[in-house]
Amino acid sequence: MKAVVMVRPKEGILDPQGDAVRHSLRKLGFEVSGTRVGRLIDLELTADDPADAEAQVERMCSELLANPLIESYEILLEDP
Amino acid sequence: MKAVVMVRPKEGILDPQGDAVRHSLRKLGFEVSGTRVGRLIDLELTADDPADAEAQVERMCSELLANPLIESYEILLEDP
Repeated sequence: MKAVVMVRPKEGILDPQGDAVRHSLRKLGFEVSGTRVGRLIDLELTADDPADAEAQVERMCSELLANPLIESYEILLEDP
Repeated sequence: MKAVVMVRPKEGILDPQGDAVRHSLRKLGFEVSGTRVGRLIDLELTADDPADAEAQVERMCSELLANPLIESYEILLEDP
């Protein structure tokens, strides 16, 4: 089973990478009012049961993939 | 208008960050057969027209946000 985890800096948390991207986009002439940069993690799981897979990915996020103090995450399970 | 850009290492391109994540997840006892790590870019655009916004984001990707030699990207436009 495949899963996608989207990790983003929380609202209000400084995002220097996003600021750098916005600055560069504006220099190139693009009109952007906001940019935030996060991480995208594609996982291939051996678990086949969706509920089991989601519970596992939830634990992966809180134990390793995201820092809950400064990041939020979203889990998308893909149909096998 | 908001857009999300998902940038991933292309198939066959080395992904040391993904390898490190897989290694760590296995050490923590999770069963994962594959992991890839990419970037997630949230954009707030001043353009209101979806076709115009998509064309702009497409140009941002090829000019700055992704390296087309080693990365693929996916653009998701969010309804205003």
